[in-house]
Amino acid sequence: MKIRVGIVGATGYAGAELVRLILTHPAAELAAISSVSFEGKKISEVYPNLAKVCEMPLTDAGKMAETCDVVFAALPHGLSEPLAAECAKTGAILIDLGADFRLEDEADYQKWYQKSYTCPELHKDAIYCIPELHRSAMKEQKIIANPGCYPTSIALGLAPALTKGLVETTGIVIDSKSGVTGAGRGLTQGTHYPDTNEAFAAYKAGVHRHTPEIEQILSHLAGKAMQITFVPHLLPINRGIESSIYCKMKTDLAVIHAAYCDFYKDEPFVRVLPLGSYANVKNVRMSNYCDISLHADERTGTLIVSSVIDNMFKGAAGQAIQNMNLRMGLAETVGIDMIPPAI
Amino acid sequence: MKIRVGIVGATGYAGAELVRLILTHPAAELAAISSVSFEGKKISEVYPNLAKVCEMPLTDAGKMAETCDVVFAALPHGLSEPLAAECAKTGAILIDLGADFRLEDEADYQKWYQKSYTCPELHKDAIYCIPELHRSAMKEQKIIANPGCYPTSIALGLAPALTKGLVETTGIVIDSKSGVTGAGRGLTQGTHYPDTNEAFAAYKAGVHRHTPEIEQILSHLAGKAMQITFVPHLLPINRGIESSIYCKMKTDLAVIHAAYCDFYKDEPFVRVLPLGSYANVKNVRMSNYCDISLHADERTGTLIVSSVIDNMFKGAAGQAIQNMNLRMGLAETVGIDMIPPAI
Amino acid sequence: MKIRVGIVGATGYAGAELVRLILTHPAAELAAISSVSFEGKKISEVYPNLAKVCEMPLTDAGKMAETCDVVFAALPHGLSEPLAAECAKTGAILIDLGADFRLEDEADYQKWYQKSYTCPELHKDAIYCIPELHRSAMKEQKIIANPGCYPTSIALGLAPALTKGLVETTGIVIDSKSGVTGAGRGLTQGTHYPDTNEAFAAYKAGVHRHTPEIEQILSHLAGKAMQITFVPHLLPINRGIESSIYCKMKTDLAVIHAAYCDFYKDEPFVRVLPLGSYANVKNVRMSNYCDISLHADERTGTLIVSSVIDNMFKGAAGQAIQNMNLRMGLAETVGIDMIPPAI
Amino acid sequence: MKIRVGIVGATGYAGAELVRLILTHPAAELAAISSVSFEGKKISEVYPNLAKVCEMPLTDAGKMAETCDVVFAALPHGLSEPLAAECAKTGAILIDLGADFRLEDEADYQKWYQKSYTCPELHKDAIYCIPELHRSAMKEQKIIANPGCYPTSIALGLAPALTKGLVETTGIVIDSKSGVTGAGRGLTQGTHYPDTNEAFAAYKAGVHRHTPEIEQILSHLAGKAMQITFVPHLLPINRGIESSIYCKMKTDLAVIHAAYCDFYKDEPFVRVLPLGSYANVKNVRMSNYCDISLHADERTGTLIVSSVIDNMFKGAAGQAIQNMNLRMGLAETVGIDMIPPAI
Repeated sequence: MKIRVGIVGATGYAGAELVRLILTHPAAELAAISSVSFEGKKISEVYPNLAKVCEMPLTDAGKMAETCDVVFAALPHGLSEPLAAECAKTGAILIDLGADFRLEDEADYQKWYQKSYTCPELHKDAIYCIPELHRSAMKEQKIIANPGCYPTSIALGLAPALTKGLVETTGIVIDSKSGVTGAGRGLTQGTHYPDTNEAFAAYKAGVHRHTPEIEQILSHLAGKAMQITFVPHLLPINRGIESSIYCKMKTDLAVIHAAYCDFYKDEPFVRVLPLGSYANVKNVRMSNYCDISLHADERTGTLIVSSVIDNMFKGAAGQAIQNMNLRMGLAETVGIDMIPPAI
Repeated sequence: MKIRVGIVGATGYAGAELVRLILTHPAAELAAISSVSFEGKKISEVYPNLAKVCEMPLTDAGKMAETCDVVFAALPHGLSEPLAAECAKTGAILIDLGADFRLEDEADYQKWYQKSYTCPELHKDAIYCIPELHRSAMKEQKIIANPGCYPTSIALGLAPALTKGLVETTGIVIDSKSGVTGAGRGLTQGTHYPDTNEAFAAYKAGVHRHTPEIEQILSHLAGKAMQITFVPHLLPINRGIESSIYCKMKTDLAVIHAAYCDFYKDEPFVRVLPLGSYANVKNVRMSNYCDISLHADERTGTLIVSSVIDNMFKGAAGQAIQNMNLRMGLAETVGIDMIPPAI
Repeated sequence: MKIRVGIVGATGYAGAELVRLILTHPAAELAAISSVSFEGKKISEVYPNLAKVCEMPLTDAGKMAETCDVVFAALPHGLSEPLAAECAKTGAILIDLGADFRLEDEADYQKWYQKSYTCPELHKDAIYCIPELHRSAMKEQKIIANPGCYPTSIALGLAPALTKGLVETTGIVIDSKSGVTGAGRGLTQGTHYPDTNEAFAAYKAGVHRHTPEIEQILSHLAGKAMQITFVPHLLPINRGIESSIYCKMKTDLAVIHAAYCDFYKDEPFVRVLPLGSYANVKNVRMSNYCDISLHADERTGTLIVSSVIDNMFKGAAGQAIQNMNLRMGLAETVGIDMIPPAI
Repeated sequence: MKIRVGIVGATGYAGAELVRLILTHPAAELAAISSVSFEGKKISEVYPNLAKVCEMPLTDAGKMAETCDVVFAALPHGLSEPLAAECAKTGAILIDLGADFRLEDEADYQKWYQKSYTCPELHKDAIYCIPELHRSAMKEQKIIANPGCYPTSIALGLAPALTKGLVETTGIVIDSKSGVTGAGRGLTQGTHYPDTNEAFAAYKAGVHRHTPEIEQILSHLAGKAMQITFVPHLLPINRGIESSIYCKMKTDLAVIHAAYCDFYKDEPFVRVLPLGSYANVKNVRMSNYCDISLHADERTGTLIVSSVIDNMFKGAAGQAIQNMNLRMGLAETVGIDMIPPAI
């Protein structure tokens, strides 16, 4: 019997990507989809790419916790907690693509999101999970906090170096660039085509909300509290994140490269590139891969890690399904093992 | 037992797309790949998107006819005939993505390609096949001429109108626009990024080599000799063809729309959009769909058909596999039923 | 003494382009700029490209007619008529980039814009002017209707053929493609970056509001009533329009080409390309040029005209200034003789 | 009498931009242009944007030193030295857009360019000049080394901080992104449209040849030897460089911002943005501006400088003309005071 899946917020970009992936997932079936903005319409009216493929109507989220085994929430922050409370009543598993359950310390949430928890008791049954790093902690939790896009690219890019102590934990600089889908489907001047095309700029330098999430996970990896400098940029492409990560090397590049290869040797979705190659967002598009390349400025003793993912796939919907697979005892790769196209 | 597939010209864009699709095809296995330019290298060295997915070495095409059940040729014109001769000896089926076997009349080939057939006797065992239009003629042919990208979008866009006599067969104008992958992987000034980006122009107006192929298929559909005016344009996107087709209506739009819906009602890969919607290349990207929208200028009695495909998928590799499926007795949709992404 | 220029609607794209061009015009000075949306702000706050260049505050349009010699209106249709009435009182010349004064027959305006004239008496003192075609009619008119972007590219592309009777006047098909700035600065889902990028589609096929304007001007050129079929498409670039125009030739291509060269031989802003070349939007970007290339499908007797302009420049602000120059007795090229960049 | 200008390497992108700018420069005239690849052709045949504007034939560089007052060299490294020797004989001033005269220490040139000087005696009469930083040293030199594109964006971005001691001089990380014109007109797989579009990657991490030039100029600014980490990335746009520069603050952001504003208060081409704004390549396109925005991660004490230029203009041809103006006693802004377009 297939896993009955509900998707709340199905008409945002991450929601629409989830719909697409669940529709071809061999062990899951799409049971319900909801949207506040388009309730009553068929999803194929909002997304004509789904014409003839999925004509399911968009409902409200009301009964989803009752009728589904797994509920994905692709919502603005603050809206997943009440949904989690609904799921808690029915036993449905909530996989949250938003920020509500990502931070361990409510103080961080209050500081960065200007908001307190509305259901604090739920947080103890939540797990934050990048499968490659945290799968051993996945047990019977009812709430899975799916990581942010930037944090995924960064954590995978630094995990071997930090866990093995190959770099200094201070002074790390992370310069990330994200495709425009990362800004969502909502209209803004900054994502209006003529303003975005042939443009490039940083935004939220040093103050992006993914910062505490990045530091939380890196601190766990390093085994001590860490702070980093994180600056995102808006990249005029649809999909893809590249994070260039700068840190002080404690050993040489060949050793570090060997350690990365070893760390990820059994991972189906992480590819450590040969030395001399560069990770490129184009090579992971439409897939769950994270490609990592390693470079050194020997003169200054700096390790440069370039980590790329598809922000909508490994950075959102694909990883959420990877988490579902893991939680439900399926092979992690089921339904998300697409090969990135060459062009 | 899986179909053993060989791909000749595997490092061109169409070849690389075939590799990607065959790798996940449930009834086929990739047996051999060849490339003149990169012989001896692993394909993942040429296409890093395939790292960890396919590390197969590129060979010459020498033994492919012997070791494969089906050989796909993604080659410049003139190179498929000798390969077909090889296949004829071994019984392998050749599916040719090039132009060698598309034209029924050698005189047309000579005129448009400045070349004569080198193996004229092979042509009698070849079938030109857009499955939606020609599948009933598919028997035990050993050579399948896979249609060109422009002709596919145009033939599907006009087939109902011509077969049912809903439009005049003279004076048809076809204004097509193709993404840059249609120009191939070879380097040219006209496809150098700074020259192509933020640019748009027609090319080969009235003299493109797809013209005789288009006219051949339309003539068959109409049951009489037809000539059309065809002008392609280079569109600064990677994938996608849109053909705007202008013809004189012999009845009203609602009737025509109903006829199109009826004509394609059982087709898994053709979507006739509701009146008022516009076919958009983005809604068929990375898929085998052809979307068709119909419009009328009532004042001038003109029917406007907008037909869109992904030139690399339905326009090349996807349709080639659809033809393989058909020829081998599989369901046509096997291995190519990807859902186009929303973004 | 410089011409005192006011710009109403200065924060739309056409308005902003006017601001830029007037700021470097040697015979004009920017006297006032207005914007309903941003009244009270400095224009450099809305358009940071103007930082340090122009810090002028945006006002309401109230006193512009009093304080300016020439007022440009870059407004949605329906808003220029009352402004023209203001200008009529003060003697200021109104150059309208909108549609209010373009159509000669109010019935056409009512039919295509669902609106009647509010100041019908003003229309007799208005001139519609593409300088290359209508400059001899420019006298002391107080209102200049600046042509639409599509009509400009099309009229210049067909003028020699129609005035000299080189093509049939029936059955003309015009397939145009416009960069996204043509859709304006206002936010829509269809111009949201991820929805527009890597996308292409027709819109308003056969029903675009520029149709009556196109037919009006072509009818004058041909000396008889004409109807054409016009279909615009949205092109994922910022600037540029390409119109591919299909008509039946009454003579051969060489004769037509010679006639075009002769017709435009003294025009500073029209370039008829050598036979064999293709007009490309990239070669006219950021300039007032219209490039025209001519092609023939000899088999079907079809002339294909490809006409390209920069929709923001020759298609809007540049031509408006060309009209100002003409009206004010300046050389037409003053202030708008920029050379298009190679890349 | 106008300055007679020659351009060697006129058909590369920087050369073509020089041609465009010199053609409208009020105090200069284009006397000769040369190109090895296209000798004998008219430049408008290579760059149709120049049709009707400039039909000058491309010659060899032979007599340019004799017939011109100023010769611009836009050549691969190693080719400007012999040209400088020619100019030395005639007294022509050479402005070199290449690397031959940028480095003070031949050992650096040998190390990074694998080449020795062929005319070492010429280097003593050369000046490296970013006008905003070095104009006081411009005297009667016969050779002007025009700075590289990346170094220009970086030096202007760091000059106030380094000269005033506002940041630490160690541990600086520079993450730059350049539009594709920076890679030149030559064809490569990495700049083929389908491979570049929707792609993003770092290249030459820690080993780019601009590194010693960057360090040379920063060391002078800081008054002590400095090393930095520099990683460029290829950005899928035509024009523009953004450099995100990370350094340790020695004082607070407001003080630093005030110092930047003061440092550049009289500079016509540098704009220090208000705190809270972000420098965007789109706001300097087609202009000689450098926009600089300042940001702080207060938690880690990191200053983030975002510095943007148009790599073809301030990063190449525009700055070269600024240097010509300075050297010839003209106002620095003459002929290069274009206003960047809003879109």
